[in-house]
Amino acid sequence: MTTVTPELVAAAYAALLTGDRAKIAEYWSEDLRFHAPGQHRFAGWHEGLDSFLDYLAGVHVASGGTWQTDVLHSVIGGDHSVELVRVHAVRAGAKPDSTSPFDVLEITGAQISRWEDGKVVEGTAGYFGDGATNANQWWSPIGPNGERRDV
Amino acid sequence: MTTVTPELVAAAYAALLTGDRAKIAEYWSEDLRFHAPGQHRFAGWHEGLDSFLDYLAGVHVASGGTWQTDVLHSVIGGDHSVELVRVHAVRAGAKPDSTSPFDVLEITGAQISRWEDGKVVEGTAGYFGDGATNANQWWSPIGPNGERRDV
Amino acid sequence: MTTVTPELVAAAYAALLTGDRAKIAEYWSEDLRFHAPGQHRFAGWHEGLDSFLDYLAGVHVASGGTWQTDVLHSVIGGDHSVELVRVHAVRAGAKPDSTSPFDVLEITGAQISRWEDGKVVEGTAGYFGDGATNANQWWSPIGPNGERRDV
Amino acid sequence: MTTVTPELVAAAYAALLTGDRAKIAEYWSEDLRFHAPGQHRFAGWHEGLDSFLDYLAGVHVASGGTWQTDVLHSVIGGDHSVELVRVHAVRAGAKPDSTSPFDVLEITGAQISRWEDGKVVEGTAGYFGDGATNANQWWSPIGPNGERRDV
Repeated sequence: MTTVTPELVAAAYAALLTGDRAKIAEYWSEDLRFHAPGQHRFAGWHEGLDSFLDYLAGVHVASGGTWQTDVLHSVIGGDHSVELVRVHAVRAGAKPDSTSPFDVLEITGAQISRWEDGKVVEGTAGYFGDGATNANQWWSPIGPNGERRDV
Repeated sequence: MTTVTPELVAAAYAALLTGDRAKIAEYWSEDLRFHAPGQHRFAGWHEGLDSFLDYLAGVHVASGGTWQTDVLHSVIGGDHSVELVRVHAVRAGAKPDSTSPFDVLEITGAQISRWEDGKVVEGTAGYFGDGATNANQWWSPIGPNGERRDV
Repeated sequence: MTTVTPELVAAAYAALLTGDRAKIAEYWSEDLRFHAPGQHRFAGWHEGLDSFLDYLAGVHVASGGTWQTDVLHSVIGGDHSVELVRVHAVRAGAKPDSTSPFDVLEITGAQISRWEDGKVVEGTAGYFGDGATNANQWWSPIGPNGERRDV
Repeated sequence: MTTVTPELVAAAYAALLTGDRAKIAEYWSEDLRFHAPGQHRFAGWHEGLDSFLDYLAGVHVASGGTWQTDVLHSVIGGDHSVELVRVHAVRAGAKPDSTSPFDVLEITGAQISRWEDGKVVEGTAGYFGDGATNANQWWSPIGPNGERRDV
């Protein structure tokens, strides 16, 4: 049995940033189940690595590459790791000085992973405060004035 | 100038049910702007008749044809008509006895139309009570247990 | 039977601004039922004029007197009147330059009234777009950073 | 420095159930900051043990004593503990067979605690899935039909 270590967790998250499926599959199980919180278009249980990767691709497109996840703290115990994170992202096409929650995602939350044999097999997340609302608005197809977005 | 009458309003809504674009275009302007409330995938300003018809097609698919709008009362004054409506719809694929707000839409609201030359040129709607939440959940891609839907 | 006229509707709304209960009761029934939309602390059915007046008093306190309702259009038909309104209000104690939806309420919607014998006996409202979310956040006991408010 | 152990965490949560302030203060700092998620009347940062205890008292009243928190898993690392919990609660006065989210709270989430010298000094929580919506509705002053509650 592989022990979950800070190095392993860091490597798993770093793999996601490469966009390299083979590299990602070293740390994230092909049978991964991941629950994205909220009501938005990527919310709910993603079954399998490909569905999870579709979600990450959606993150990249919707944010125009601005999505940034900072790990504030990492808690590891047994077969679970919990990352306390801050997420910042701006919607592709947003006006640079926009402060609208439909444009700017500014949330903190906890990302929970369960590991088996050195790979994440189940993940979920919860946002602190009223972050769920910000996430639902940011992911919605509408901009600050109710206009429908292209992306 | 065409006067807005109860008969005209009724005919306009009846036309929508035919699904016949030419028939619909007799009452709904090609330049129609329609604002669907909420954060869901059809929310926001639909610009032009085709975008509005895409929304109606989405209603049909998501509800498996169960979407029903009952007009409780109609208020007509000048170039505006306001329909007080009750909407009932069940998500395609929902279990028959489900009471989940992700499956069952049960809302009341006001639908406002502005008319020019016998056609609706601008429409919007607002839901009463906490109907906005029910609508956002119903339209979301997730079912009662967080599973992602096919439709 | 008293006919509902623009003058009567205007007088009813003007009476609310006086804060004079006797004056208000000339236009708003003692048995008024009023449904405030959303999930917030004044949401739901207010039964009786006093409950409605409590809500208005709450509006005044929470907004520090800044609550402003502009009637964009009035639609009158039979025993119903519908006011299309824009509401602007800033939470008491908010920073002057705040753009947070927890501080600034900026919504449009429809206010529906049913009249009997020259008085409103039932009222309800629905917000357009994603106004329901703004209203729930504005009315919540928290400020832009999650701090709990005094008011 | 006191090490955070499963026994310490369990004792801290058990203390909350006693309702005994002195007992609770053995595990929860007088300077505790606790962030309740959402938009509802107890949402936001509770500063100090007394504000936190007010929240717990509110939980007891609103749920008529039915609030139950089951710890599904506990993750402890360094000065943090994370409890993965399932919460079930029924609103006081709800009909026994109600399935309305305004009556029945059924959520899972993560509760994060930071410890100093054997006491929790900071806590926060995030709900999984669309639990934030269920919590906001459950805590709202309205019942399934929009009626305002006594409690």
